[in-house]
Amino acid sequence: MALIVQKFGGTSVADLNRIRAVADRVAATVRAGNQVAVVVSAMAGVTNQLVAWVRDAHADYDPREYDTVVSTGEQVTTGLLALALNNIGIPARSWLGWQLPIRTDGSHGRARIDDIATDELMKGLSKGEVQVIAGFQGLAPGNRVSTLGRGGSDTSAVAVAAALKAERCDIYTDVDGVYTSDPRIVAKARKLDKITYEEMLEMASLGAKVLHTRSVELAMKYNVRLQVLSSFSNEPGTLCVNEDEIVEQELVSGITYSRDEAKITLVRVADKPGIAAKLFGPLSDAEVNVDMIVQNVSEDGKATDITFTVTKGDLKAALKVVESLKGELGYAALVPDSNVVKVSVIGVGMRSHAGVAKTMFETMAAKGINIQVISTSEIKISVLIAEEYTELALRALHSAYGLDSA
Amino acid sequence: MALIVQKFGGTSVADLNRIRAVADRVAATVRAGNQVAVVVSAMAGVTNQLVAWVRDAHADYDPREYDTVVSTGEQVTTGLLALALNNIGIPARSWLGWQLPIRTDGSHGRARIDDIATDELMKGLSKGEVQVIAGFQGLAPGNRVSTLGRGGSDTSAVAVAAALKAERCDIYTDVDGVYTSDPRIVAKARKLDKITYEEMLEMASLGAKVLHTRSVELAMKYNVRLQVLSSFSNEPGTLCVNEDEIVEQELVSGITYSRDEAKITLVRVADKPGIAAKLFGPLSDAEVNVDMIVQNVSEDGKATDITFTVTKGDLKAALKVVESLKGELGYAALVPDSNVVKVSVIGVGMRSHAGVAKTMFETMAAKGINIQVISTSEIKISVLIAEEYTELALRALHSAYGLDSA
Repeated sequence: MALIVQKFGGTSVADLNRIRAVADRVAATVRAGNQVAVVVSAMAGVTNQLVAWVRDAHADYDPREYDTVVSTGEQVTTGLLALALNNIGIPARSWLGWQLPIRTDGSHGRARIDDIATDELMKGLSKGEVQVIAGFQGLAPGNRVSTLGRGGSDTSAVAVAAALKAERCDIYTDVDGVYTSDPRIVAKARKLDKITYEEMLEMASLGAKVLHTRSVELAMKYNVRLQVLSSFSNEPGTLCVNEDEIVEQELVSGITYSRDEAKITLVRVADKPGIAAKLFGPLSDAEVNVDMIVQNVSEDGKATDITFTVTKGDLKAALKVVESLKGELGYAALVPDSNVVKVSVIGVGMRSHAGVAKTMFETMAAKGINIQVISTSEIKISVLIAEEYTELALRALHSAYGLDSA
Repeated sequence: MALIVQKFGGTSVADLNRIRAVADRVAATVRAGNQVAVVVSAMAGVTNQLVAWVRDAHADYDPREYDTVVSTGEQVTTGLLALALNNIGIPARSWLGWQLPIRTDGSHGRARIDDIATDELMKGLSKGEVQVIAGFQGLAPGNRVSTLGRGGSDTSAVAVAAALKAERCDIYTDVDGVYTSDPRIVAKARKLDKITYEEMLEMASLGAKVLHTRSVELAMKYNVRLQVLSSFSNEPGTLCVNEDEIVEQELVSGITYSRDEAKITLVRVADKPGIAAKLFGPLSDAEVNVDMIVQNVSEDGKATDITFTVTKGDLKAALKVVESLKGELGYAALVPDSNVVKVSVIGVGMRSHAGVAKTMFETMAAKGINIQVISTSEIKISVLIAEEYTELALRALHSAYGLDSA
C-alpha cells in the first residue's frame, strides 16, 4: 500500500462533470490499494474573476484581503470534490489551509510554506479516507488566510507530499508529460519517461510551462518523486527524479524556446570600470529582470557595445531607464529588438561531455542562423537568434542531438 | 460616539458598484462619529449557484462539505467590502467566522450561534477601524466551517450586535421598513416607525418576509434595537423595540396574508377519542407542518368533520398520509382546497382590548366574505378565506382598524 498525493489543476476541475471525472480517477487509485491525498486548484476561470474583483475594489489593495477573497476558489473545489467522492462511495473530507494548518510566512499573495501539520491527515488516511486539500492557500501569522501566488497549487501538492513522505506526487495537467521539445513545432518530439529535477527546473524557467518552478525546487529539496501526467488520458507521464535514478542519461533531454524576449544594445559605451554597475543597478531598482548579458571587447580600448535581454513586457521600462542614463553612460546609440527568440538545449549529461556546445554552434551555422547572444549554465546552453528561425533551429537541434523519435 | 452594527443583504452587495455604495454608506456612519461593525451576505445569486453545485455533486450531501462550499460567498463579499472601504480612506478589515471565532453548535447547514469572541473586534473598533464580518457562517466543533441556514446573516448581525452591546443593529434590505400591510395591495398602507419584537415575529412568520424569524427572536432575547431600512434610500426605517418603548401603542400594527396555504377537510370522521392523534401523529412523522386545525362538533355524536391547513408545498405529502389512514380513520370523503389565503391581524394592543376579533368578523361579514377557519394567539387573529377575496379583505381590515394613511 502506497501513499500517493494527486494534484488537479483548474482545467481538470473546470465544472462538475470534470470534478466527477477527477473523483473517478481518485477512486481508481484508492481501489488499487493506495492511500490518497488530493490537492485541488480553483475551477478554471474562477481565480481570474476573483482577482479582477479585488483589483476593481481597490487598485492598491491590501494583500491580506486579496488572499481572503481569492482563496475561496480552492475552498469551493475542495468541498465539491469531497462530495463527488462520497457520491461514488469513497470516504473523503475537505481541508482548508487554516484547518490543518498549512502555516506560511506573512508574504500575502506570494507566501512561502513554513510547515504542514500532518497528524489529522495521517489519521484520516489510515482510516481509508481520502484527504482533499485546498491548494494555493495557507494560514499566515495573525490568523489570516494567505495564498502562495499563481501556480501555487503545484507547490502545495509537493509540500503535502514531502510532509506526508508520500511515495509519489502526481501532478495532473492538460498535457501528458514533458517532451523533448514542443510537439506543436517539432513533430518528432518524444515524451520523456524520466527527467532530473535540475533539467525540469531549467525547462520550467526556459519556457516549458508544465510545472511551477517553485514546486520543482521544493520537490528537489525534499526528494519528492514528482510525476506530470494528463488528467484526460490513462498513460503514464514524466517522472522527475534524482540524477542517479536515471541509468541511461541522455546527453540532452530537451530543447526549449522562449519568444518572450527582447534585446537592447547600447552602441559605443565608454569602456571603463563601473559602467556595468551604472547600467544594471538602476534596471534592478526599476524591477526589470535582465536575463542574458554580453559585453564586447572594445577594439580601441575606449568604447564597447553592451547587449542584454529582458522580457518583452519589460522592454518599455528598460528603455526608459537606459535613456535616463544617457548622460552618465554616454552611448552613441540605443538599439532595441523584439524580433528575437531564445533557444536552449538542456541536459545534465553535458556536465561530463564537452561536445554539446560545439554541436549547437555547428548546427546553427549549417542552417545559416546567426547567433546574437550566448549564455550557458552547468546543464544548459541558450542562444538568442532572430525569431523567424525558431522552427528551423528547434527541428535541426532536435535531430542533431539524436532526440527524434523513430 | 455610538457603536452601530450594519447588515447588508445580497441585493445590497450584488456587484462591485453596489458594494462601493455600501462602503459610502458605512463611511458616512463612521464620519458621523460612530464605531461601525458591518455584517455582509453573499453577492445576490452566488449562494444559489453554490448550493446547486453541492446538490449536483451529491444529492445526499455531507452538510459539513455543504458549509465549506456555501460559506465562500460571504467570504468574498467581506474581503471586497473591506477593500472598497480602504479605497475611500476608511480603515477596515475582514473577519471570517473561524477567525473571531463565531462559535456555533454542530448542526451544519442550520447551526445556532453559541458565542462570539469580541476582543479583537473591540480592539479594532477602538482604533477607528471598521470591522467587516462574514454573515451566515461560524466555526463548529471539530474546527469545521458551519452555516446558519438561509437568512442567517440577519441572525449573525443581531448576534454580533448583542455581543458588542451595540447601540443599534441596522438591517439594510430592499424595502424601506415594515408596513401596516403589503403596499402593493393596500395603497393606503403606512410604514411603521416602531414595532414590538413580538409583532415583528408574527409578521415574519405570517408572510411579511422582511426579517428572518430567528434574528428577531435573538434581538428580543438580548434586547437589541433592530432597525429595518432600505439600502437604496436615506429614510429612517422601522425600529423593533420593547413594548414599553412604544408610548402610543396602536390596537393593531399590521395586517398580513399568506397565499402559501392549502386546506384539507376529512368529512364524517368517527367522533371518538384518539382520532386527532391518529391523524396528526403520522403527518408529523412525515414532516408535514400542520398550521390551523378545526374540528366541528358532530350533530349526531357519531361523526365529525376535521379541517386543517398545510403549506401548498406539503399538500401532496399530506394527502398521501391521510389516504393511507383511510382504513383507520374511516372518513366519508377527503376534500383538498388550494384556493385559500390566510389573513392575519397583528397587534400587542389586542392583549388589553376585547373588540379586535369582533371588528375582524364584522368586517368580513359586511363584505360577504366567508371565514373558513379561525386561529388566534395572544397578539394575532388569523382567518382562512377564499383566495379571491385577498385584496378586498386586506383593504377592508386596514380601514376598519384605522390604519389607512391620510
